[in-house]
Amino acid sequence: MTTPQQAYNELLQISREVALLKSLGSLLNWDQETNMPRGATSYRSQQRSYVAGKAHRLFIDPRVDELLNIVEASELVSDPFSDAAVNVREWRHDYDRAAKVPSRLVEEISRTSVLAHEAWVNARRDANFALFRPHLAKLIDLVREMAEAIGYESNPYDALLDGYEPGETTANVEKLFSQLREAVVPLVQAIQHASRRPKVEILQRHFPIERQKLFGQAAAIAFGYDFQRGRIDAVTHPFATDVGLGDVRITTRYNERFFNESFFGILHETGHGLYEQNLPAEHYGTPRGEAVGMGVHESQSRLWENFVGRNLAYWEHWFPRAQQMYPESLSDATLEEFHFAINEVRPSFIRVEADEVTYNLHIMLRFELEQAIIRGDLAVDDIPAAWNERFEQYFGLKTPDDSQGCLQDVHWSFGGFGYFPTYTLGNLYAAQIFDAACQALPDLEARFRVGDFAPLLAWLKENIYDQGRRYRSRELIRRITGRDPDASALIAYLREKFGSLYDVDG
Amino acid sequence: MTTPQQAYNELLQISREVALLKSLGSLLNWDQETNMPRGATSYRSQQRSYVAGKAHRLFIDPRVDELLNIVEASELVSDPFSDAAVNVREWRHDYDRAAKVPSRLVEEISRTSVLAHEAWVNARRDANFALFRPHLAKLIDLVREMAEAIGYESNPYDALLDGYEPGETTANVEKLFSQLREAVVPLVQAIQHASRRPKVEILQRHFPIERQKLFGQAAAIAFGYDFQRGRIDAVTHPFATDVGLGDVRITTRYNERFFNESFFGILHETGHGLYEQNLPAEHYGTPRGEAVGMGVHESQSRLWENFVGRNLAYWEHWFPRAQQMYPESLSDATLEEFHFAINEVRPSFIRVEADEVTYNLHIMLRFELEQAIIRGDLAVDDIPAAWNERFEQYFGLKTPDDSQGCLQDVHWSFGGFGYFPTYTLGNLYAAQIFDAACQALPDLEARFRVGDFAPLLAWLKENIYDQGRRYRSRELIRRITGRDPDASALIAYLREKFGSLYDVDG
Repeated sequence: MTTPQQAYNELLQISREVALLKSLGSLLNWDQETNMPRGATSYRSQQRSYVAGKAHRLFIDPRVDELLNIVEASELVSDPFSDAAVNVREWRHDYDRAAKVPSRLVEEISRTSVLAHEAWVNARRDANFALFRPHLAKLIDLVREMAEAIGYESNPYDALLDGYEPGETTANVEKLFSQLREAVVPLVQAIQHASRRPKVEILQRHFPIERQKLFGQAAAIAFGYDFQRGRIDAVTHPFATDVGLGDVRITTRYNERFFNESFFGILHETGHGLYEQNLPAEHYGTPRGEAVGMGVHESQSRLWENFVGRNLAYWEHWFPRAQQMYPESLSDATLEEFHFAINEVRPSFIRVEADEVTYNLHIMLRFELEQAIIRGDLAVDDIPAAWNERFEQYFGLKTPDDSQGCLQDVHWSFGGFGYFPTYTLGNLYAAQIFDAACQALPDLEARFRVGDFAPLLAWLKENIYDQGRRYRSRELIRRITGRDPDASALIAYLREKFGSLYDVDG
Repeated sequence: MTTPQQAYNELLQISREVALLKSLGSLLNWDQETNMPRGATSYRSQQRSYVAGKAHRLFIDPRVDELLNIVEASELVSDPFSDAAVNVREWRHDYDRAAKVPSRLVEEISRTSVLAHEAWVNARRDANFALFRPHLAKLIDLVREMAEAIGYESNPYDALLDGYEPGETTANVEKLFSQLREAVVPLVQAIQHASRRPKVEILQRHFPIERQKLFGQAAAIAFGYDFQRGRIDAVTHPFATDVGLGDVRITTRYNERFFNESFFGILHETGHGLYEQNLPAEHYGTPRGEAVGMGVHESQSRLWENFVGRNLAYWEHWFPRAQQMYPESLSDATLEEFHFAINEVRPSFIRVEADEVTYNLHIMLRFELEQAIIRGDLAVDDIPAAWNERFEQYFGLKTPDDSQGCLQDVHWSFGGFGYFPTYTLGNLYAAQIFDAACQALPDLEARFRVGDFAPLLAWLKENIYDQGRRYRSRELIRRITGRDPDASALIAYLREKFGSLYDVDG
């Protein structure tokens, strides 16, 4: 007879072993992107699928279900926000999702993704949708099958979204997005007709990579990123990753002719890294020690990148230092010119290069197309046309080719439908969280002006990072801000900041 | 009922899974030495012991014994050097060794090693044997217990040696070493009294690290090291490692004020790397695709480093290139001066800095002490005095402190008794193999003079690398050279080369 406490302890052990296996997967991936010689590609995929398969099988063992049943019926979970109750709730969530998907389907998605990713790389390079089409069609079938296997109340997209943002629904997201859309579309139009224009040429001067490394590191350190428990490397597609307790690595891409690329990339990944570095170490390997979901994770990268890093107060401290680092490129620019330049709003084709205002339109477009695809209302052959039509509607621009259109993102090549909306959720949460932080810490901007970010980090640590998965995102936002997730904070922020920069009414 | 073929296939699968787990261990280790942030140390040791434990348990499962019994009684192994017979022979060897050692003892050695290693680092830094003493005492007890568990005919040291050089015996090694000692001791004495002296100051000029990187890479590429399946990184203690099929990484240490350190270090590790890169890929993860043992492995590092890389013919090609790379340091040196300098013989305290002649005396000293320790004839407290006494006898030098004496090597801190003799076995084999190569390829040195090492690599690949563990080291040497392992080739090489350089009779 297994007691509830024994069952809970056994679950802790399984959870930590699964986390260790996942950490090996993260190291294999980090190494592949940073260091691995080309000739190792094929064996590396064997190594990665081995550890992923081990972790998956370990976690979907029926024993996990048995153990969860024992603990769920016990006193151990009577306080719903106790460590044990949180772990059990999230194990149950993750177990039910994982166990419902047949291993055959998991493996087929994984195998198809390998080929699809390769095809997507070529298709994007050649701007040739036809190369990706058969793989995408297959992945869509598999992902729809997966949604059916997981189950949902009324919308299959819910089953996918829940994988990245546990507990969130398509209906909720739609409401938030339409509220945001109504404000952003006229703001973008107003900005396009504004007479003020930033001198973006400042940012396209010469920024030697060695100095960008120094400057980016200094900026990460100033935010509180701990290099004793992390590092920064150069890669093609930047990311942040936890490769084990005490080891959260971030990556960036340097461009000698564009200041923003590595600098704001580093601030962004530092935001992800700060979240991971400040999760409660004693709960490592259990939900209580993990990030809430992709939305809150993205809220941290966007908060540190945009709400702090593109703030005028931030640059009052950092601009003189940037001028010192790059005298030949920045000595003739003023703080205000520089700040306006890094906040340029310009409709463009590529999501990852988009500014704070237009970024969310990119996400909405993908969210709408994905829903249609998953519902079965949009055939794979019609994706490019649907993309381009909607893009023109939102941005007033004709997409020149599919590599600047529906082939630009990696997500679909691994079947990652349901992921995109978490980016805009992140922006919405970031605005609400930053508002709450400003209210709690009235001198926050004054501290930015002297390069002091410790109060903000401490507040975020207490309110978000320390909490792990204690609260789902909706509940977390409610507790921090006193309100449900809501677009009004982001709308107010965008209107005020960009209305003032461009001298327009949004 | 499992058929022999089914049993063999299952063994192949287990073997490949064990190899994959070990490759994860190698990546964890490589990353720890090259990239890992300090704060990850503790969790990293968890990750490493997890994969090591998994590999160990998988391989010592009684099922392996059952399967081996089935195949061993079958026709599959009737040709003793067929792939199947080789795999079965070596699986049996490795299984019997591994399965005889109780898991409790394996874990205790592993736990003790972690603490012992830490203590050794401090002890060496402070030249304070007392800090290491209790850990060493405990490790000696555990290693002696391990030797008993593994079993041996008459000498417990055999059980340890066999772990690094399968099938080799202490008695054989003693015979080889005493033959070598008789020739080397007078040669060292003659050289010490020689009137010719190399101008070693040439090598201690300024060699900028960025240029050392270029030059070292060029030298590795010239030998045939494949950067599509490898890379070179800087570390504190250099090594070569296989982190997966198609991924053999080497490491080095740069010293701006000493040419030899990284250059010959790279040639040495390239030798190890060439062996690993040229093992038969189709047998990856099985003994047929693995290196014979540490002795033959070391023979390849020493062959490429010394027999090729310290050869005059080699420098006829490379010295003009070195002068081009480092004009400010080498333009006033002649080829002959440079060649003499890189071949300086000088009794010194540190093994890893020793020249080709005195190196083997360092090994003999350790081999003799280790035997006494394992026999129980040398108490742990008496190790420093015994070391220093014997050192003076061999080298005519008084050891100034234990960090330059018995604390200098890492091996004992992980219980690696029995490892040292493989270094000198490597030198002996290298001399015999190089002789055989010179006979098979009469224009070998002429090819070196024009920088062409492809014929040597092809010959080694055919005769050694392609063979995997098909033959044990003794048998391999016999097949290549027509003779048993023997010191006469090394003795003749040392006498001729250094007799001529120093103008002495050895």
